[in-house]
Amino acid sequence: MSVGLRVLDAEKLLPVGGVRLDVTSAGIHKSGRNDLLVMQFDAGTQVAGVFTQNRFCAAPVIVCRAHLASGAALRALVVNTGNANAGTGAAGLAHAQQTCVALAHLLQLQPEQILPFSTGVILEPLPLDRLIAALPKVLANNAAADWLDAAKTIMTTDTQAKAASRTVNIDGQTVTLTGISKGAGMIRPNMATMLGFIATDAKIAPALLQQMVKQVADQSFNCISVDGDTSTNDSFILIATGKVAMSEINTSSHPAYAALYEALASLAQELAQMIVRDGEGATKFISITVAEGRHTAECRQIAYAIAHSPLVKTAFFASDPNLGRILAAIGYAGVDDLDVSKVNLWLDDVWVASAGCRHPDYQEIDGQRVMKQAEIKIHVTLGRGQSQATIWTCDLSHEYVSINADYRS
Amino acid sequence: MSVGLRVLDAEKLLPVGGVRLDVTSAGIHKSGRNDLLVMQFDAGTQVAGVFTQNRFCAAPVIVCRAHLASGAALRALVVNTGNANAGTGAAGLAHAQQTCVALAHLLQLQPEQILPFSTGVILEPLPLDRLIAALPKVLANNAAADWLDAAKTIMTTDTQAKAASRTVNIDGQTVTLTGISKGAGMIRPNMATMLGFIATDAKIAPALLQQMVKQVADQSFNCISVDGDTSTNDSFILIATGKVAMSEINTSSHPAYAALYEALASLAQELAQMIVRDGEGATKFISITVAEGRHTAECRQIAYAIAHSPLVKTAFFASDPNLGRILAAIGYAGVDDLDVSKVNLWLDDVWVASAGCRHPDYQEIDGQRVMKQAEIKIHVTLGRGQSQATIWTCDLSHEYVSINADYRS
Repeated sequence: MSVGLRVLDAEKLLPVGGVRLDVTSAGIHKSGRNDLLVMQFDAGTQVAGVFTQNRFCAAPVIVCRAHLASGAALRALVVNTGNANAGTGAAGLAHAQQTCVALAHLLQLQPEQILPFSTGVILEPLPLDRLIAALPKVLANNAAADWLDAAKTIMTTDTQAKAASRTVNIDGQTVTLTGISKGAGMIRPNMATMLGFIATDAKIAPALLQQMVKQVADQSFNCISVDGDTSTNDSFILIATGKVAMSEINTSSHPAYAALYEALASLAQELAQMIVRDGEGATKFISITVAEGRHTAECRQIAYAIAHSPLVKTAFFASDPNLGRILAAIGYAGVDDLDVSKVNLWLDDVWVASAGCRHPDYQEIDGQRVMKQAEIKIHVTLGRGQSQATIWTCDLSHEYVSINADYRS
Repeated sequence: MSVGLRVLDAEKLLPVGGVRLDVTSAGIHKSGRNDLLVMQFDAGTQVAGVFTQNRFCAAPVIVCRAHLASGAALRALVVNTGNANAGTGAAGLAHAQQTCVALAHLLQLQPEQILPFSTGVILEPLPLDRLIAALPKVLANNAAADWLDAAKTIMTTDTQAKAASRTVNIDGQTVTLTGISKGAGMIRPNMATMLGFIATDAKIAPALLQQMVKQVADQSFNCISVDGDTSTNDSFILIATGKVAMSEINTSSHPAYAALYEALASLAQELAQMIVRDGEGATKFISITVAEGRHTAECRQIAYAIAHSPLVKTAFFASDPNLGRILAAIGYAGVDDLDVSKVNLWLDDVWVASAGCRHPDYQEIDGQRVMKQAEIKIHVTLGRGQSQATIWTCDLSHEYVSINADYRS
């Protein structure tokens, strides 16, 4: 099941100059489908990334951080699905490093110039021999893969591939941005590995690129109820090949920056929302805005409390306007000095609660009407400040339980 | 469904001297079953309680706190099911107060001598007329109800009544403790109202009773994944009628205190575990102990992260030893300086992970064997201190979704 997630058309995904994609089957994923992606970049490419904050971060995340910090000129990514190489200790770390060594050897690079990524089951050893054996095969492809192939290759429980493109005109040149993402675990899916890769042929200075990846993540992948901070493998990588003939953008006050950033943020939000729309068992797409907070952090805290409540999520699945469950989630979100008599709640255009209790004009039939929609907006005001935050989530269905109960079967 | 929860035998529930129970149907619960309990205590009874920390606490909780703080001699409780009187604002507060006024009038007491409790749907007005109309009827019962009747009356989505008794010998006298509880919402059921009432005929000083109710709650109702701190209506009340001829216990150094406390804690733990065993859709009872922490708080934090993870809970439902999900939950629990290379994990007697990764001798067949049991112990060691904490939870099944999707239908 998925909510408003269209099957992608490969034609609409634009190639990015300076990026070559190759995919193959390494026999790691049980199905035998393509499970290995290698993404190569031309010399001069800049790469920046943000990663999970989970203490049990996966081996490839440790290696990625080290290689990014080394200052080496990054030239390739290698991504496998079917095994997360997490909870695998020193052996797992060696496997991630050996993957880079093997690929570097084939590409005549240094291992530090490669970033490794893994997604799939945790706590099982990475089948390194099969992965390394497949590297010459993936590089021997005559024709490069396209972005749709890449998006399909990195899927785990995703039901559909996730990819999108944007273009933006800078100084009369067309700059292209294309990205892919994966992830479908839902509810409070701190483990449902989220991977996001966006490449552009724009020319962006390294320090600005790092600032952009962090800022964009906070407005996209960190706004979904797949919590980017807490999986073992979550990673979001931004690649700028600089293939477009343009002056380097090295500050956010550069005249072209705003347009470029807007295109990037819009693309990242689309990729992030695709993950929610394909949420395991999702039948509804829910957007939660909490406004009038003292600061963004408390707005996010309350929005996440609503988004993570299984009682709220099952009520949405059932189209049951049992909306007291939302008020209760607001109440236990941990904002200790919240004055509930200032809290308002809307469901789309329906004013459900005012001054902390049922709005006098609220009719259950109106709540029911909104609850039946496939896309629903929850709007909460706290009456204590000017800040706001929006996060995106989905409902909790029978199918969620089936998918996660049977994941490895 | 429920795990190891036996149908209660009314004979085994011991009456408590100085307590009278009466039940009736007030027509608040849709089924027409008994939904109103009045519990009266003889003069001289001491009462203490602990309540939800939810900012949207229900009207009756506000009234209970005020009446306990007033110092009035408490003489009765009134409990309705079918409506939580929460998210109901000033009108709700007036309804809870008017309930006390009406019952006080009938019993020739002051309203402050009565504690009101409500459980059921949130955000809907309490049908006060029906409740007040039923009060003369409930008091006109010829024969008092027994504890099993009381336990049945306060049920919501509970599939079975929850009650238990203990006796303890103090100075040659038999002291009796009998309690009832309700609550079945699970996963992270911050809203699944938990009510617990324990009465004893022991003679206990007010200050000590208040200390005991807090301490016992922390070792029982606050150790289950129905989080006692965060529902709108959660309440746990301890009643000491002092009907046994004994000297008052007024300090924890009293020679009889240890035995009395042990009986009380054991009773409260049984009542709390009954809630987990009857967890909505529960098929497994899971006990999670986190040891070798720096302090109890961080052990509880990690135990709750495991208990609240839908991915962990669905794996238990499926008897699937996808145990990396437990490591990931430990990693994202928020203990920022956790050294994962010191973490060990056992499932009953099976050593699953050592030094933060898969134990070399771990065989999936062993994990599978334990996962198939109806009762499972998870044991985690952190290798950073001497503290530990245990919490009790259950799995996440298809039936959970059904129950919560259809709650009001």
